[in-house]
Amino acid sequence: MERTLSKEIPGLVGQKVKMCGWVDTIRAHGKIVFFDLRDRSGIAQAIFMLSKQEQDAEMNEMAKKLTPECAIEIEGLIKERPQGMENKKIETGGVEVQVEKIKLVGKAEILPFDIKDLNSGLPIVLDHRPLTLRNEKVKAVFKLQEEMIASFRRALSSLDFTEFQSPSIIPQASEGGSEVFHIDYFDYSAYLAQSPQFYKQILVGVFERVFTVNQAYRAEPSMTTRHLCEYTSLDAEMGCINSWEELMDTAELVTKNILTDMQKNRAKELAIFNPQISDLNVKFPRIKMREAQKIVLERTGRDNTKEPDLQPDDEKELCKYAKEKYGSDFIFITHYPTKKRPFYTFADPNDPEYTLSFDLLYNGLELISGGQRINDYQTLVENIKKWGNNPENFEFYLQAFKYGMPMEGGFAFGAERMIKQLLGLENIREATLFPRDMERIDQRLSILQGEKKKDKN
Amino acid sequence: MERTLSKEIPGLVGQKVKMCGWVDTIRAHGKIVFFDLRDRSGIAQAIFMLSKQEQDAEMNEMAKKLTPECAIEIEGLIKERPQGMENKKIETGGVEVQVEKIKLVGKAEILPFDIKDLNSGLPIVLDHRPLTLRNEKVKAVFKLQEEMIASFRRALSSLDFTEFQSPSIIPQASEGGSEVFHIDYFDYSAYLAQSPQFYKQILVGVFERVFTVNQAYRAEPSMTTRHLCEYTSLDAEMGCINSWEELMDTAELVTKNILTDMQKNRAKELAIFNPQISDLNVKFPRIKMREAQKIVLERTGRDNTKEPDLQPDDEKELCKYAKEKYGSDFIFITHYPTKKRPFYTFADPNDPEYTLSFDLLYNGLELISGGQRINDYQTLVENIKKWGNNPENFEFYLQAFKYGMPMEGGFAFGAERMIKQLLGLENIREATLFPRDMERIDQRLSILQGEKKKDKN
Repeated sequence: MERTLSKEIPGLVGQKVKMCGWVDTIRAHGKIVFFDLRDRSGIAQAIFMLSKQEQDAEMNEMAKKLTPECAIEIEGLIKERPQGMENKKIETGGVEVQVEKIKLVGKAEILPFDIKDLNSGLPIVLDHRPLTLRNEKVKAVFKLQEEMIASFRRALSSLDFTEFQSPSIIPQASEGGSEVFHIDYFDYSAYLAQSPQFYKQILVGVFERVFTVNQAYRAEPSMTTRHLCEYTSLDAEMGCINSWEELMDTAELVTKNILTDMQKNRAKELAIFNPQISDLNVKFPRIKMREAQKIVLERTGRDNTKEPDLQPDDEKELCKYAKEKYGSDFIFITHYPTKKRPFYTFADPNDPEYTLSFDLLYNGLELISGGQRINDYQTLVENIKKWGNNPENFEFYLQAFKYGMPMEGGFAFGAERMIKQLLGLENIREATLFPRDMERIDQRLSILQGEKKKDKN
Repeated sequence: MERTLSKEIPGLVGQKVKMCGWVDTIRAHGKIVFFDLRDRSGIAQAIFMLSKQEQDAEMNEMAKKLTPECAIEIEGLIKERPQGMENKKIETGGVEVQVEKIKLVGKAEILPFDIKDLNSGLPIVLDHRPLTLRNEKVKAVFKLQEEMIASFRRALSSLDFTEFQSPSIIPQASEGGSEVFHIDYFDYSAYLAQSPQFYKQILVGVFERVFTVNQAYRAEPSMTTRHLCEYTSLDAEMGCINSWEELMDTAELVTKNILTDMQKNRAKELAIFNPQISDLNVKFPRIKMREAQKIVLERTGRDNTKEPDLQPDDEKELCKYAKEKYGSDFIFITHYPTKKRPFYTFADPNDPEYTLSFDLLYNGLELISGGQRINDYQTLVENIKKWGNNPENFEFYLQAFKYGMPMEGGFAFGAERMIKQLLGLENIREATLFPRDMERIDQRLSILQGEKKKDKN
């Protein structure tokens, strides 16, 4: 018999079906066992009557021993629920499965805690990720992440961007100094890419418009609620721009598309978190960093107007300001100081101390970073030197500019940060399937390393 | 003025346009400079008449100095080409741009070789990848790769698979022994994932059906034409299967979809290589490994019937056989010996010396590898021991099975291998934007390392 999904059963009243999934909840009432079967499509209520027939003894025993998360196959008859017993909250709430056969295909041991109500604290939740990801709310985070990334791809593909696969192993720690992971690479040294920056710029020379969804790595020895050692970076880069403002237009379009697509395609998962999303018809305000610092001074009395970058508290205040004044969850901050941006950032011809760069803040946190890049070969070589590096180490990257590059720029953001800010999650680890930080890869490294040491003795 | 793309100009005769792109080819005839402008949409022929007007002297000088690959912006008038001068081979072949203004936005130095005709050998081509990727044929490879991956996603999404982002940093070299890259991870050790195998299995417990497109890493000290140290792995895994043959059905469906989508959506790029693709209505033949070895013996006299795996020559012969007997470029080989497969592979209940596993061979090379997995916790723990490992080191992975896992399995393939086999490329490096092998990351490591040593002195 073909397998039937939960969501299909409302249309199959009176028919026999075969189903497969997990025991979601279970309770016994005398000779009746009630349970919910969970599969990828939803939940189906099932009822099994313990039989007096001797030949069914084995199945009876099994049904009595079923516990939450057991993987089972069942066969049974779809019936309408008795009047007054319907559950309007779920799609299959008008019907139930009268179970005739149960087969236990993957026994579950007794759960270490209630996975419907995770209140043991994040470290325990992460230690048991294969189990706790099955929680409805936790699972919803990653259905939303999936839609976010799919929407990013759709928006850019429709604008003629080419998707490419960026390499993670790089030959030099060229972009970022100390916060880079070292790899033993045969007789050589290699590093993990902090971003696909150089490759996406190189490919502007080939495809003009490109994007990539890629793992990025930061060896930051910090344990904040907003940093990960490995995260999913969404990167776009476009050539032949008329002005650097096109980059912000594109970043804004992509961001709005993502939120619209989530509301349209993942309404059920979004409703679990019920985020307040500001009116997406409002254009994101765009303010120069120096002006932004003045606004912060005026509103809070904090004088950071001489600082070369925004402070986390400034970012929060500016988002409050954008919300109050423009009704926007988002605000672009532009013209960061040249010295604080990477060597390839394009200086403002009208004021070369500042760059044609931007950050997009979202609900108090930097979400997107971007800007126009230097496309002239000689200027780039000079800047590499000015930033204290040797152009020889950038020879591969520089080829793209040596052989003709139009005006170009791009932007990047972390998938996890956007989900964190959208859903109001406290910790970015909640927005990551398997978070890596300086103390954790799947499980706590102090525990794994302890075991390893034992193995060696 | 808004920018116009090459492909738009046939509809704009008589209108003024602004365009941006690269000088594809250029030649001067006395007072006339002919050039082709290349942008992401195609090629436009342009004509610039050197002017006698003194105020145009600067632009004249520039036009005379333009060389291939210079990035330029032009303004001009779209005109029909004189009769007899049309080029029916290209979409814009009926029109040309009469250029009024040229602006050089990214100068190109003289090219080190002709990028239209790459005949310097692969090492030189790879050393100059940022430039040689601009070659039409080379570029087409990656437009085909893009479509392949997009098609993989579409096929699986339409079957309710959830896409996830798999981590690359893993805590133990658990799956693969010595061929794994080591990372310095703060005070600990970490490794680069050889595949997302464990994570996709864990997520079957969550989403039932999952897939991921991910970089995978192999520290293989080999320099063959079919191995890379970093490649793009397309992975799928599905739970609640009725039989392991569903896995082959899904792999076959995905493979056929990819080829169909390429023919439909990337006909132009495919035509450059003109591959012979067998009739996709033919079901891929499925043969047990031991029978396959007998077929090889019968056809060639080579007796490998006692070998625990197929030899590369056997794979080639079996593809010949499939082509001759079934008219198929593809053939599934099933039931590989239990000892030669990973510990999690499901043994055939009828003959536990062999597994419910398969490889899909394509034009002489293994393309896909897959099979049913052990979903019973105790059996898995026993197998980990039997394979000489400590189950404690697999505690995180094992949680997925400890808490209920249905019958499940999956498959994986490398994006580069499929493109190589489809297009008949000689070397897998040609199917990789930026290939990494034991001697190369972007450029030759012996050269990069030499420079590094110099830096240290």
